[in-house]
Amino acid sequence: MPRAVVLLSGGLDSATTLAIARADGYECHALSVDYGQRHRAELKAAARVAALLGAASYRELPLPIGAFGGSALTDPSIDVPEHGGDGIPVTYVPARNTILLSVALGLAEVLDADAIVIGVNAVDYSGYPDCRPEFIDAFQQLAEVATKQGVEGRSVHIEAPLIGMTKAEIVRRGTELGVDYSVTVSCYRADDEGRACGRCDACRLRSEGFRAAGIDDPTRYLRE
Amino acid sequence: MPRAVVLLSGGLDSATTLAIARADGYECHALSVDYGQRHRAELKAAARVAALLGAASYRELPLPIGAFGGSALTDPSIDVPEHGGDGIPVTYVPARNTILLSVALGLAEVLDADAIVIGVNAVDYSGYPDCRPEFIDAFQQLAEVATKQGVEGRSVHIEAPLIGMTKAEIVRRGTELGVDYSVTVSCYRADDEGRACGRCDACRLRSEGFRAAGIDDPTRYLRE
Repeated sequence: MPRAVVLLSGGLDSATTLAIARADGYECHALSVDYGQRHRAELKAAARVAALLGAASYRELPLPIGAFGGSALTDPSIDVPEHGGDGIPVTYVPARNTILLSVALGLAEVLDADAIVIGVNAVDYSGYPDCRPEFIDAFQQLAEVATKQGVEGRSVHIEAPLIGMTKAEIVRRGTELGVDYSVTVSCYRADDEGRACGRCDACRLRSEGFRAAGIDDPTRYLRE
Repeated sequence: MPRAVVLLSGGLDSATTLAIARADGYECHALSVDYGQRHRAELKAAARVAALLGAASYRELPLPIGAFGGSALTDPSIDVPEHGGDGIPVTYVPARNTILLSVALGLAEVLDADAIVIGVNAVDYSGYPDCRPEFIDAFQQLAEVATKQGVEGRSVHIEAPLIGMTKAEIVRRGTELGVDYSVTVSCYRADDEGRACGRCDACRLRSEGFRAAGIDDPTRYLRE
């Protein structure tokens, strides 16, 4: 059985990614990174999602890059805006996906995994540079020269199954695969129970996804 | 004044790298990563080296990838061998330099730095894949697509000033620049005071470097 490291945040996209990797026949080792994000409820959700979707293992790695500052997602002195506006938004966490893939690369090498699966999405995304196909391609090139696996010609494959999908397509695919989205947390300002604000960029993209997919939105909102 | 993030382990190579970056006119922000390495004395040395060589700031980031296992440098159940032998040795830490450069990339973006400086060396090295020029080149390509800086055409430059130098050349250059090597710790099995075993690969490369440079070896050894 091929083996994959699956990056899991506890949000809608990564839960769907794990379900897809399982359906593709991988033994899935879920990895969550606690990078000091405000939305702590996401991490609690990640552990539940891993269990519900049959991950072979779940690891949570503390990695306090939030202490560097520079993002509304980790720095309490920067407000999370309700709309991102033009360009790269303040919710961008510097080099986040590079860091996530790097630690996944280390774990993949220890587990002798065949793939790393990440739920980045270049369609209904928020303008982050590290969610684009050219980023995934560049990381693949790096993996081939960076590791013992790569040097030995058994380089891990970086998979981003959601990269060309709309949010509606992601929701439909996950629903087909039995993902319980009421457990997942996408909101940048979720409370400790994982209830969503319904107003930030992440909430807006998510609710539009359910609407466009024609599927009832099971998200638990703070103001209903 | 251009600004650089300098990866600092507390060993001979990275201390020399910091001295070179300072001599090149950079305001240097030193970053050490506590990845669960056995040789804890290296980290203590890093803070002293940063202060002695005039770093503008020093940060130590906990990043417990050692918990993944897979390396003699982080896993107490694997012995550190006295000679690496052929191929990639067990002291290789999976994806270590990829992870180090990734967190440096995040810090560089927060500080709006011009360069990341890393003390990898492809000549008198230990056979690690992530110490080669093709690895540095691949990471440079990644940085250009991964970050807000890159997308805006102000991509950080990855510098590896030691990459083509022999250990003797490194020792000579650092000595010219006033590096106090008695403070640095390279040994994989150093004790808490930073005294070196004199027998592991790192000790052997280091002492041969001093001998070939014709410079007295100031290393504090356990068995003298």
